[in-house]
Amino acid sequence: MAMNRAVAAATAADLKNDPQSAQTGLAARLKIRQNRHSGPTSGLASGYVQANLAILPQNLAQDFLHFCQRNPKPCPLVGVSAAGDWRVPSIAEDLDIRTDLPRYRVWQKGELVDEPFDIVKYWRDDLVTFAIGCSFSFEQALLDDGIELRHMTCDCTVPMYRTSVETNPAGPFHGPLVVSMRPMKPAAAIRAVQITTRFPSVHGAPVHLGKPEMIGIKDIGKPDWGDAVPVHDDEIPVFWACGVTPQSVIMAVKPDFCITHYPGAMLVTDRRNTEFAIM
Amino acid sequence: MAMNRAVAAATAADLKNDPQSAQTGLAARLKIRQNRHSGPTSGLASGYVQANLAILPQNLAQDFLHFCQRNPKPCPLVGVSAAGDWRVPSIAEDLDIRTDLPRYRVWQKGELVDEPFDIVKYWRDDLVTFAIGCSFSFEQALLDDGIELRHMTCDCTVPMYRTSVETNPAGPFHGPLVVSMRPMKPAAAIRAVQITTRFPSVHGAPVHLGKPEMIGIKDIGKPDWGDAVPVHDDEIPVFWACGVTPQSVIMAVKPDFCITHYPGAMLVTDRRNTEFAIM
Repeated sequence: MAMNRAVAAATAADLKNDPQSAQTGLAARLKIRQNRHSGPTSGLASGYVQANLAILPQNLAQDFLHFCQRNPKPCPLVGVSAAGDWRVPSIAEDLDIRTDLPRYRVWQKGELVDEPFDIVKYWRDDLVTFAIGCSFSFEQALLDDGIELRHMTCDCTVPMYRTSVETNPAGPFHGPLVVSMRPMKPAAAIRAVQITTRFPSVHGAPVHLGKPEMIGIKDIGKPDWGDAVPVHDDEIPVFWACGVTPQSVIMAVKPDFCITHYPGAMLVTDRRNTEFAIM
Repeated sequence: MAMNRAVAAATAADLKNDPQSAQTGLAARLKIRQNRHSGPTSGLASGYVQANLAILPQNLAQDFLHFCQRNPKPCPLVGVSAAGDWRVPSIAEDLDIRTDLPRYRVWQKGELVDEPFDIVKYWRDDLVTFAIGCSFSFEQALLDDGIELRHMTCDCTVPMYRTSVETNPAGPFHGPLVVSMRPMKPAAAIRAVQITTRFPSVHGAPVHLGKPEMIGIKDIGKPDWGDAVPVHDDEIPVFWACGVTPQSVIMAVKPDFCITHYPGAMLVTDRRNTEFAIM
């Protein structure tokens, strides 16, 4: 019953054809499922948690689950499916993981083989879905507090860096921590520590600030992913553990088969960002 | 009745003659009142809040109260007395402010005129007592979390600096913010923000970190009060608002009459440090 009511509400909201009309996570997923949205999920269902996606065969899933448990800051799991199940009820009631993301990436032995708009034909009974929290949730809280996010001001992707900090290995999974960087004035950096501490399940507090060389970042102007942004003289770089870490670690293993989200095309859940705040 | 039981307990604890025998705030105050302890209060009544003392004539007290209200980070008031009353029931049940600190400083027109062990002969009916939180409370929380405090490692006084940041004025009271500095590795600095955020009534979160020049500190090796401590290459200086601020601001006014604690000889209260944690 609850689901039916939600579907009806979503359909009404979706009469308009712009992304902002998908005002709930469910409305966003239905729009995507019905092939009415295939672009980035940024701007969809404001206030709802979006997640990174990793789908792995069961023979790797146990070790990957262990890896996430051992590395909660870069790999904050917000949901895991049963093997072969395309649902993840803990984060979305009406979800078909095979169709509800705008676009996917399919990998074989570490090689990108397809970028389909659904993965119905790739689905197998041994696949396990991992939904991993992303920085969208805490970035919204920072913006709400009036803190500037430089990559948004510059209208580019947050700069990300491979560090000299090793993750805690589990099975075949190991590799360096990847961090995202946001430059801030010292007072804003202190406030950002306070705010993001409230969101331990979406990367939480920064892992480092100032002194990029201490974590193996030689040139702050040359990120390994994303775009360089200016760091002014009265600012310090503030570093958060980044959801690119698990993707990078998975790719290093070159699994026979795996599926991830297409960059920017995230899983939109039914959970609200505020639900993930510990206070 | 409650007070009588506490006095009995304190007397029993005080049979031994070392500072550590004063295990409660009341026991410490009784020991001091009975002239059995005249040195620094550090180490007395572990776990109990100690406070800075400022005693002002009523004609200045209203403006000073306003000043504290406008500057809660450097001037976190933990208790204020009625005029002429030597008690502050909100922080200590059995308290005589005239005798219960080990030593005092008496000032006339901004000049130090006496450093007595009690202020009975100086007491007046128009005097108002201000008890202002001090960093002892949050330092204990940092130590409990395994964070090194350099000035303790060096067995010296925390370095303090006059900044270029102005306090918010009230009446005749105005002047620069004074900060204390503790060098920390970045990860410890982030943790220290989290820990001290929990203690807003004893200075709370840092006001600044890194980049001392941004708050007008030209040479970190030359503090205005306390002792210089080494800041290593893998550390950043972390700055907290300091209880020397109100003392410095009062002295600048050169009040006809005022009394403060002798450095290191604080008011020991009945409140526990943990009571001041907001979570």
